[in-house]
Amino acid sequence: MCELLALSANVPTDICFSFTGLSQRAGVTGPHKDGWGIAFYEGGACREFKDVRPACDSVIADLVKNYPIKSTTIISHIRQANVGDVCLKNTHPFRREMFGKAWCYAHNGQLKEGAENSLFTQQEEVFYQPIGDTDSEAAFCWLLNQMRKEPELMKSPYAFCEWLQQRCHILAEQGVFNMLLSDGDTLYTYCSTKLSWITRSAPFAEAKLNDVDLSIDFSNETQETDVVTMIATQPLTDNEDWNIVESGTLTVFQDGECIVAQAKRD
Amino acid sequence: MCELLALSANVPTDICFSFTGLSQRAGVTGPHKDGWGIAFYEGGACREFKDVRPACDSVIADLVKNYPIKSTTIISHIRQANVGDVCLKNTHPFRREMFGKAWCYAHNGQLKEGAENSLFTQQEEVFYQPIGDTDSEAAFCWLLNQMRKEPELMKSPYAFCEWLQQRCHILAEQGVFNMLLSDGDTLYTYCSTKLSWITRSAPFAEAKLNDVDLSIDFSNETQETDVVTMIATQPLTDNEDWNIVESGTLTVFQDGECIVAQAKRD
Repeated sequence: MCELLALSANVPTDICFSFTGLSQRAGVTGPHKDGWGIAFYEGGACREFKDVRPACDSVIADLVKNYPIKSTTIISHIRQANVGDVCLKNTHPFRREMFGKAWCYAHNGQLKEGAENSLFTQQEEVFYQPIGDTDSEAAFCWLLNQMRKEPELMKSPYAFCEWLQQRCHILAEQGVFNMLLSDGDTLYTYCSTKLSWITRSAPFAEAKLNDVDLSIDFSNETQETDVVTMIATQPLTDNEDWNIVESGTLTVFQDGECIVAQAKRD
Repeated sequence: MCELLALSANVPTDICFSFTGLSQRAGVTGPHKDGWGIAFYEGGACREFKDVRPACDSVIADLVKNYPIKSTTIISHIRQANVGDVCLKNTHPFRREMFGKAWCYAHNGQLKEGAENSLFTQQEEVFYQPIGDTDSEAAFCWLLNQMRKEPELMKSPYAFCEWLQQRCHILAEQGVFNMLLSDGDTLYTYCSTKLSWITRSAPFAEAKLNDVDLSIDFSNETQETDVVTMIATQPLTDNEDWNIVESGTLTVFQDGECIVAQAKRD
């Protein structure tokens, strides 16, 4: 399994504090030491860092922890390998261009063996293909191949959310499927078994990490109008109230605000 | 204009020395200070670093200069903007997945204004689309869209080289088109106006950078069987004999060796 971390904000914001907490789970407070990756959106493009070394012991991760790269949409992942070797091509987040936009994706969970093959045979034309060997990347390619067939859908945000949730249900039926997905403007998340989020806005207060003895007083770091949401498989701080998402829910963020929280219908 | 740098080797090799020289051209010995990027292939996937800051004054570039990331295929670019703002989405190398492989590309030169539009209208189906505003990325997408229509061609390496050179000629007719392109296995280069390369193998000797007072004795850094080729728009060292490529030539490298050097036919 793995851990997911994402940020959505209305002003470019760095993720040094939260990523420092997450990276402890890569060998210190958790077993997720099979590589990590992070994508920072910047004006529609992605700045990406990846490594197969554990995030708690990686020169590149040290840069991400200490050099404040600011972005309004960030997706990150630390990996505990189940399907696929520990190597760069199996390291999330995965990325593809569709309709002139950079789509980024990370997955926590595991699909049934062979699930990706059965998904792939359900479609006539396969455009996006995995580069690596993971069920996660195969599921991402399947999603994008499905989206590509419905260009009109992308113009109607709420119809798209409905559609995306249905596709995520299909994937969740194949195993565990907690997901982060973004085109840079909007951050889509799906909870199959575990996902939490918290929105921070004025008045800002202190936050204290779970995984390492580190606190930050956000009132010193922010402007009054800032709105910043953090999403993670498990809460990263122990003195704040995180929203725990119900299974089957699609939660969508834009500019730091939760704009859709669509529970599964029976 | 810009500067290109690439490496092809038969063993994973770092590029710290050459990238240190190249990055001097980003403000110190050259005007190419509008961002930079580098892609290291590793087992079919790409590890990418990009920044809009000048390579001679970038925390991320300092990491690339000092932390030896080893790869058998590396593509790098420092930018002096002509078409498109200085921003991440306009920063080379560009990357797309095609047929399950990661394709990377960087371009030196400039195409005639509107050239990309006239290219794009020549085809029925546009699959790959630019995310940014550069003529360079538009030309990359055009190339890939053309390649995608010819999946059989990819199975015949020499026919593919012939085909690729013809497409590069078409782009070079639209302006200046010096190019680096790779799928991770093979490094394709095209020279429209300037491109040089050098292959280093045993007995290894000292190399001295042009752009900064720095030398390296490769005999201390290498094994006897290592074969390493560096490709650059302009030679990076002043004590070695670089091959200066003729205009219109497609030069192809694999495992550090030049496997195709196909001049333009009259």
